[in-house]
Amino acid sequence: MPEICLLGTGGMLPLKNRFLTSLFVEYNGKAVLIDCGEGTQVAFAQHERKLSRIAMILITHGHADHVTGLPGLLLSLGNCSRTEPLEIYYPVGWERVIKNLLSVCDCLPFPVILHSLEAMPVSWTAAQIDPMLEISALPVDHKVPCMGYSLTLRKKPVFQPEQAKSLEIPVKFWKLLHQGETVTLPDGRIIQPEQVTGEGRKPVKITYVTDTRPIPDIIDFARDSDLFICEGMYGDTDKKESMNQKGHMLMQDACRLASQAEAKALWLTHYSPAEMNPESWLEELQKIFPSVKISQDGENINL
Amino acid sequence: MPEICLLGTGGMLPLKNRFLTSLFVEYNGKAVLIDCGEGTQVAFAQHERKLSRIAMILITHGHADHVTGLPGLLLSLGNCSRTEPLEIYYPVGWERVIKNLLSVCDCLPFPVILHSLEAMPVSWTAAQIDPMLEISALPVDHKVPCMGYSLTLRKKPVFQPEQAKSLEIPVKFWKLLHQGETVTLPDGRIIQPEQVTGEGRKPVKITYVTDTRPIPDIIDFARDSDLFICEGMYGDTDKKESMNQKGHMLMQDACRLASQAEAKALWLTHYSPAEMNPESWLEELQKIFPSVKISQDGENINL
Repeated sequence: MPEICLLGTGGMLPLKNRFLTSLFVEYNGKAVLIDCGEGTQVAFAQHERKLSRIAMILITHGHADHVTGLPGLLLSLGNCSRTEPLEIYYPVGWERVIKNLLSVCDCLPFPVILHSLEAMPVSWTAAQIDPMLEISALPVDHKVPCMGYSLTLRKKPVFQPEQAKSLEIPVKFWKLLHQGETVTLPDGRIIQPEQVTGEGRKPVKITYVTDTRPIPDIIDFARDSDLFICEGMYGDTDKKESMNQKGHMLMQDACRLASQAEAKALWLTHYSPAEMNPESWLEELQKIFPSVKISQDGENINL
Repeated sequence: MPEICLLGTGGMLPLKNRFLTSLFVEYNGKAVLIDCGEGTQVAFAQHERKLSRIAMILITHGHADHVTGLPGLLLSLGNCSRTEPLEIYYPVGWERVIKNLLSVCDCLPFPVILHSLEAMPVSWTAAQIDPMLEISALPVDHKVPCMGYSLTLRKKPVFQPEQAKSLEIPVKFWKLLHQGETVTLPDGRIIQPEQVTGEGRKPVKITYVTDTRPIPDIIDFARDSDLFICEGMYGDTDKKESMNQKGHMLMQDACRLASQAEAKALWLTHYSPAEMNPESWLEELQKIFPSVKISQDGENINL
């Protein structure tokens, strides 16, 4: 069951009580971190999440509010005596920024593996976290290379012991069958996993999109998400044009995307530092998408 | 009168309630910032200091806990529509790190002027802040190039109007004389400033030293400081050897330096993240140097 914590909800600049947007998703002790602005390691401490769990960092883009926490965070990981490799993914074009930041911490006791993602949709299995976890990246529209990310944890279908017993399958083969493998029994029978499992369970999907205009591609990308986390710089619709021009979106844009994507829930994040009271827009936003939440730093859920 | 605020007191890693060590010293609306670790701009907000006042940044060295707040802080200065140049001083050898960090914020609306300080004692007048302000830098001993800094604000001697009246000096010449200029009166007499001023007033001296072994050079450098701010990683004297080996010092080392330098007051800072209760050493430290303070984030004074 993924444990999700939105470490910060700020865009552009951290405020006294609002850290920069960053998402922590933990799967059975191994975690994905999305974005790492200044102060992210402090937010970890404040929300009692363990740095040592991080197995992978996904960077949406290289603007300072999304990356300048990297050197401090990596040094802290080094101080925890980490030796396992750390993988960092980011959109093509930001290699210089990422490498420049990492030059501040050039004596780490663990390897850092950098992956530059081409400007096209791509998916991969994050087996180092969970063999059932698939990560997808979508280029979005922020005037600079920027990616949205989606994490989909597939679930094994439910094993049906009564069915296995009625087929007289020895217990020692049950685990292999549940893991999806075909087995040959001592009596020569070949058993397919589908003979002893029920219907497939719905995967758990989390989508994170920030720093982009509200482009239609996001709708399919976030389709059926259990949790869609999306930027909402302002709630004041007078700012729509200027926000979209700057490669951002309003809270209302995010709600429309969530509705069209048929997401189960929407958490807003990446508020402008000038948006001091995002909660004031809630009623208006619920008319567009009832399951919207005006997230605050530390917002968390187990899905 | 300088207004001093120790924005953070942490060494190595920021903690939930302890930002990284950074000193803000304001002289009549223009400020010097010494060191800028991750989160410094948040500490500015927490302690209600204005970013826009910063005229100069002095960096002790390029380790992450002293510099990774630079990109965010400079971008925030840019968001305040700053156009005046910003000067950054750092010890020779750290140019790559500083420039790499600044590459994250390459569209600033103001010029950044970098000064690399050679590994030797040096002093200069910071006229852009106050024509009476002298800054000195001292190479210290941290195994990598590292500087201590001392800020000395000279004060004009007190003007003595009775003396000026008795010499029948027209009032319009008083200001020039008080500023230290020699004037020729309409009647041909040449008046020296010393004829109308009292004894010189003692300058205000602030010394900031962190990330170094307790070397004897620091004693003269901090001599007669009104406020000496110095690292004290631990209070446990069992750690002395390992700290000195790592290029650091204990709280007791700092107290001895303060005593030998005949400083008026000592503020400790740059505590190890493992030193959770620095206050517990106060009584022991006061036996070495009675005017020691176990500083906390936001410690401030007007001198």
